[in-house]
Amino acid sequence: MSREMFSGNLRNRLHSDEWLIWQDQYEAKENLKYESLFALSNGYLGIRGSHEEGTKITLPYLYINGVFDKSETFMRELSTLPNWLGIRLYVEKELIGIEDCEILEFSRVLDMKGAFLGKRVRLKDSKGRETLIEGIRFVSRNNVHRMGIRLYVTPLNYSGIIEVESIIDGTIINFYDAPRFKVKHTYMTANEKLAADGCYVEVATRENHLHVGCGCRIEAYADGKQILGNRMISRFGEQSVEFGDIHVEEGKEVEIVKYVSMYTERECPAYALHTTIEKEIEGFVETGFDQELKAHEDVYKNMWENADIQITGDDELNRAVRFNIFHLMSTGNEHDDHVNVGAKLLTGEEYGGHAFWDTELFMLPFFSWVFPKTAQNLENYRYHLLDAARANAHKNGYKGAQYPWESADDGTEQCPDWTIEPDGTCYRCYVAVYEHHVTAAVAYGIYNYVKITQDMDFLYSKGAEILTETARFWASRCEYNKEQDRYEINQVTGPDEWHEPVNNNLYTNYLARWNLGYVLSLLASIKKENQEAYDILIEKTGLTEAETAHWKEVQEKMYLPRKEGTRLLEQFEGYFELDNVTIEKYDENDWPVRPDALKTKRARETQINKQADVVMLLHLMGNEFDEETIKENYAYYEKRTLHGSSLSPSIFSVMGLKVGDDSKAYRYLRRAAFIDLLNMQGNTREGIHAANTGGVWQTIVFGFAGVAQREDGMLKVHPNMPKEWQGLTFRLHYRGAWLEITADGSNQAKVIRLAGEPVEAEINGKVTTI
Amino acid sequence: MSREMFSGNLRNRLHSDEWLIWQDQYEAKENLKYESLFALSNGYLGIRGSHEEGTKITLPYLYINGVFDKSETFMRELSTLPNWLGIRLYVEKELIGIEDCEILEFSRVLDMKGAFLGKRVRLKDSKGRETLIEGIRFVSRNNVHRMGIRLYVTPLNYSGIIEVESIIDGTIINFYDAPRFKVKHTYMTANEKLAADGCYVEVATRENHLHVGCGCRIEAYADGKQILGNRMISRFGEQSVEFGDIHVEEGKEVEIVKYVSMYTERECPAYALHTTIEKEIEGFVETGFDQELKAHEDVYKNMWENADIQITGDDELNRAVRFNIFHLMSTGNEHDDHVNVGAKLLTGEEYGGHAFWDTELFMLPFFSWVFPKTAQNLENYRYHLLDAARANAHKNGYKGAQYPWESADDGTEQCPDWTIEPDGTCYRCYVAVYEHHVTAAVAYGIYNYVKITQDMDFLYSKGAEILTETARFWASRCEYNKEQDRYEINQVTGPDEWHEPVNNNLYTNYLARWNLGYVLSLLASIKKENQEAYDILIEKTGLTEAETAHWKEVQEKMYLPRKEGTRLLEQFEGYFELDNVTIEKYDENDWPVRPDALKTKRARETQINKQADVVMLLHLMGNEFDEETIKENYAYYEKRTLHGSSLSPSIFSVMGLKVGDDSKAYRYLRRAAFIDLLNMQGNTREGIHAANTGGVWQTIVFGFAGVAQREDGMLKVHPNMPKEWQGLTFRLHYRGAWLEITADGSNQAKVIRLAGEPVEAEINGKVTTI
Repeated sequence: MSREMFSGNLRNRLHSDEWLIWQDQYEAKENLKYESLFALSNGYLGIRGSHEEGTKITLPYLYINGVFDKSETFMRELSTLPNWLGIRLYVEKELIGIEDCEILEFSRVLDMKGAFLGKRVRLKDSKGRETLIEGIRFVSRNNVHRMGIRLYVTPLNYSGIIEVESIIDGTIINFYDAPRFKVKHTYMTANEKLAADGCYVEVATRENHLHVGCGCRIEAYADGKQILGNRMISRFGEQSVEFGDIHVEEGKEVEIVKYVSMYTERECPAYALHTTIEKEIEGFVETGFDQELKAHEDVYKNMWENADIQITGDDELNRAVRFNIFHLMSTGNEHDDHVNVGAKLLTGEEYGGHAFWDTELFMLPFFSWVFPKTAQNLENYRYHLLDAARANAHKNGYKGAQYPWESADDGTEQCPDWTIEPDGTCYRCYVAVYEHHVTAAVAYGIYNYVKITQDMDFLYSKGAEILTETARFWASRCEYNKEQDRYEINQVTGPDEWHEPVNNNLYTNYLARWNLGYVLSLLASIKKENQEAYDILIEKTGLTEAETAHWKEVQEKMYLPRKEGTRLLEQFEGYFELDNVTIEKYDENDWPVRPDALKTKRARETQINKQADVVMLLHLMGNEFDEETIKENYAYYEKRTLHGSSLSPSIFSVMGLKVGDDSKAYRYLRRAAFIDLLNMQGNTREGIHAANTGGVWQTIVFGFAGVAQREDGMLKVHPNMPKEWQGLTFRLHYRGAWLEITADGSNQAKVIRLAGEPVEAEINGKVTTI
Repeated sequence: MSREMFSGNLRNRLHSDEWLIWQDQYEAKENLKYESLFALSNGYLGIRGSHEEGTKITLPYLYINGVFDKSETFMRELSTLPNWLGIRLYVEKELIGIEDCEILEFSRVLDMKGAFLGKRVRLKDSKGRETLIEGIRFVSRNNVHRMGIRLYVTPLNYSGIIEVESIIDGTIINFYDAPRFKVKHTYMTANEKLAADGCYVEVATRENHLHVGCGCRIEAYADGKQILGNRMISRFGEQSVEFGDIHVEEGKEVEIVKYVSMYTERECPAYALHTTIEKEIEGFVETGFDQELKAHEDVYKNMWENADIQITGDDELNRAVRFNIFHLMSTGNEHDDHVNVGAKLLTGEEYGGHAFWDTELFMLPFFSWVFPKTAQNLENYRYHLLDAARANAHKNGYKGAQYPWESADDGTEQCPDWTIEPDGTCYRCYVAVYEHHVTAAVAYGIYNYVKITQDMDFLYSKGAEILTETARFWASRCEYNKEQDRYEINQVTGPDEWHEPVNNNLYTNYLARWNLGYVLSLLASIKKENQEAYDILIEKTGLTEAETAHWKEVQEKMYLPRKEGTRLLEQFEGYFELDNVTIEKYDENDWPVRPDALKTKRARETQINKQADVVMLLHLMGNEFDEETIKENYAYYEKRTLHGSSLSPSIFSVMGLKVGDDSKAYRYLRRAAFIDLLNMQGNTREGIHAANTGGVWQTIVFGFAGVAQREDGMLKVHPNMPKEWQGLTFRLHYRGAWLEITADGSNQAKVIRLAGEPVEAEINGKVTTI
């Protein structure tokens, strides 16, 4: 597999190997994995990497971020929308498709630098006719309402007529291949011909009646001339088909271009959707496919300049790291502050496109350091939904603002109370009832975002209000234990969901305490620095001195369980009394094997963990713990964590490096970096593990590059790279400046300022002005 | 393959081998052929033999006779309607389908006696789970609004949950696999849950807005108890899905039954469709699947008693003959006189479900002799459309009634003026402009129907009116050639469409002359026997004596081309001057090979024919030609006919026997009998060749059994069977009596009267009273 195998059209466009993710063989049972890996997103919408001609095994989803619907499901989920991918080529009624012909050549390639999907297939039909098809597909980030496909088609040993169908498919439903869960979230409101050529499908979500339009036009060219004949638009129920035919000559290439546009009622009144899309397509045709693709690539070129991580001496891993960055930055939206980044990005349907604590703790650091505008949007998303969080707290009998465990468009709790088992029985799901630490994550996210970006405007005008309301929530959530004279959070679940619920989960209690403490000092500093902002905040929140006094007490008397007389932090009250099962075996990938003890016992009866919990706390609050404490706790919990969540390995990697467990750190990084590329959890079909993509970035930057912020906020760089790495380079945005950080093989860092004012930083232990 | 391979459920139900048509192997590329062969019809509707679980190659059409629509096509065609076949079984999300599993056993069987489709498949999924599925499907002829499927499902090596989807699929379009021609003839008007369980889809045709409803309900049983759990109705656009699950135990059979009902606005007001279907399904469930199936089988038992042909000593051919009779009699409708029998029955979309001359000349004799009520309906169909035929004549500048070459529901010409070539170019189609002999066929059909059935009521009250108007058409169609003092029909096409148009096609001229002559004598006899009927006729038609005098002249002076000084009839004026190419080679099936001369010449420049033309005339008007003339013309044209139409072999077979060309006759019969079973024309995928099914019956009865009617109408039986046949038995309805005719190996016929009054007949040359 290499670019060389492609014809000139694509060969010249493809970037060098370190930017390419290949599929070199077609196996139907791998379709769903590749659909996730090869999904394309421009922040506005995401479309899975399905084949244009359709395959039997497929989940051909297209999502526009923010377009949610509930209908018969238990929660508002991203609605799959009309899919415009379909292009079918026929020769004498035979479909020239990957599953309908003999495959003589096959490759697909995700070009991460150019952010497009390329393909080359040579197919032989049942009559012996061979057709070469190369193709390119992109969703523009230059204009997020434009997307397209270009196919280069060459009849290798025949002349004749190729019939083309260009399809907008409105029949696709969520849970397409799961009979019990299938649901259609939209209904069709229009299936029309565009005034010029092309077809148009409009649907609306069933609950909110939010309209979404999709228009397409197909053209064919040879020698620069339009050659599509006998064009015809057909409306087949929920499918719209534009038909045309092309006279082809043996050995002579023709081009088929599909110009697509989508808008929703969120950007455009419903009555104007059709005409807006019509004009957009006309404009697109006028601009030209190449020109739009170039503009799109230019946007990505700029994004990569800041986002790329270059590792010298570990090419395969480097490519995998890029893959994670590619999907994460592609999904982030720098223009819309009403959408978040779902747990599967826009690449799959699991978790309904909901935002979790994953956003703040795994993804936000990346955006804050590299795409601060996107990070700000994610913060504003939470601010827009503050009232919903207030209502959520009220509904649950608390004060302040309780952010929902799962958040969609309206901020109401989207973690379902009930779930259906595969056998059809419903069971009560208690996650939303017990798992409250997301509210701490939102608070921590604001703190961390501001610490990185110094966006004091946001902090004063919005962040402080959120922090005040979340502190208020925690104060109301805590119970005073008179006997022990301490505040407790009982009946709660921490990040480790295998112990649900528990009393006094250390992670939760600690972050609640932190929230209360932080907001108290923040209030003081706002009052000092910006009296007007302070007055507005007090007015908005109705905060009283009695209340803050109470918070102070709660904060001071918060119970933080630990093993007396040791440095060991206790995951929750009573954890150390559980069966002390440890991990003793590792598989061929050096991955922990589930202890035999779990065959007879449930995990909740043992100390075995699903994921980082105490270790996560040490990661977030590292400055508050001494080195020895971190080391001992890492070692203790590392022996007891099975990484049942994709959120675990990257955190263990970062923390492993902190405590000198270097080889494990590298192993964890590989695990995290390849989790989807090698389908290591077996569920990549459901979409890319979003939190993990951010975790990979954190592992490199915070772990191996040793990037941190000191107590006083100063940037600190202290690399600790694997021996194999000869170098590491990446960029960060820090206090208005763009810095390029390079580490060499001997772990010496160099920092160059590329733009902005001079800044101070501690590099390899020495404070320097850059 | 035999009934023995089936479990008790089906083994006991299947009839003996001579009634069974088997498919013993699954090959996707044969799907479309088997869909035609295994189509089921009850006269009201027809559904192709697609697989319940769906396959990639499929034309899953369902038609209700009479439901036509034009939309973007060139003609009103039978609209494919929502298909209720879909039943999908899943185990842990894996579809237990023929194309999704390894096939361990496969067979399907059409039981012609019971008129149901059986199947047995044993499938192994990717997890190694084996499932045995036996099934039975029928469309009731006892109550044409009931149809159903029963599956017997046994998990052979696993226990667990089987998820079931029962589907009504409203997405199916006409020309499903032909991109250029695809068309959707309906739009959805309802997708609803039935008040009890079950789902309901209603569509309307786009042009007439005729509503059609389809309702389904699924149940599952074990040990006689209902066991379907977690039932759910989902509406996915134009699909309606009833979901349920079944807990299954290894080795234990469960039954899944789908109860279906369909009605159209033709039988039921649109507003009542939903409730009517709901009640029908409730009634069906109450009656029970077995009971309804038994009632259906009883109807077929009665039909077969009269319709079966038993040939001793030629089992394979006998089964093929039954196959033709099965499809023909299944499609005939004894209850509805507004529908006809299309050129592909209700088994495929070619020719749009239109009635041609095929009905009168190929199929009507069968119905007249065996199902006189159905024959009468076919006659009434033409009478209902007499006004349309009058308008058609007027539109074309003629008088009287000109029946359309292709007839759908409204009697307007449905043979398109324009057709699209595969390359998208439109070409002018002149068939309807030139091919007028269908009007003679309608006239001849009446004559023949009445001759057989003695239905004088029909003749006097309706038939005579049609005959008068068709005679009037012919009189106006003829041109007087002053020079030759003769009447001519110029610019016309006969049955042989390879010569189009010609002047004075003998077949057409002869039948036009016959029509004029017959109506003149008919008028005289009506006047004599039924003055009242005569007066009404004259009033309705405005017939004058001047007109009949003119007809007499036309009839007497009609030009009938022939070779002077010989017995040779000339197919059309100038035919004998064409290049005298003859057939010299025969292929391995003893079938004529296209002469090399046609490589450089078009058939129209030669004497090579597509199909019986003069020979057809001799067949219809045999009584008017002496034996020598028939013999010589048969021999002449047999050497020049390529049988490019399925309408040709059977007629050559009958006529071959008449002239003593016995071996060819048998060869033609085999060709006709197996034309679809062996897909000999390569287009069985498009549907069963309807005219040919009637032709097969005629070949046996008129050919080998030598059944005819003398000039005076008396039944004549004079067998002339192949040596291999040891016996032949069949029944005819003759002048109120049911006769059983048996021929033995020495060609001696025996006729027994089973019911009705004594009749006279000429048996083996001797007139006897039976």
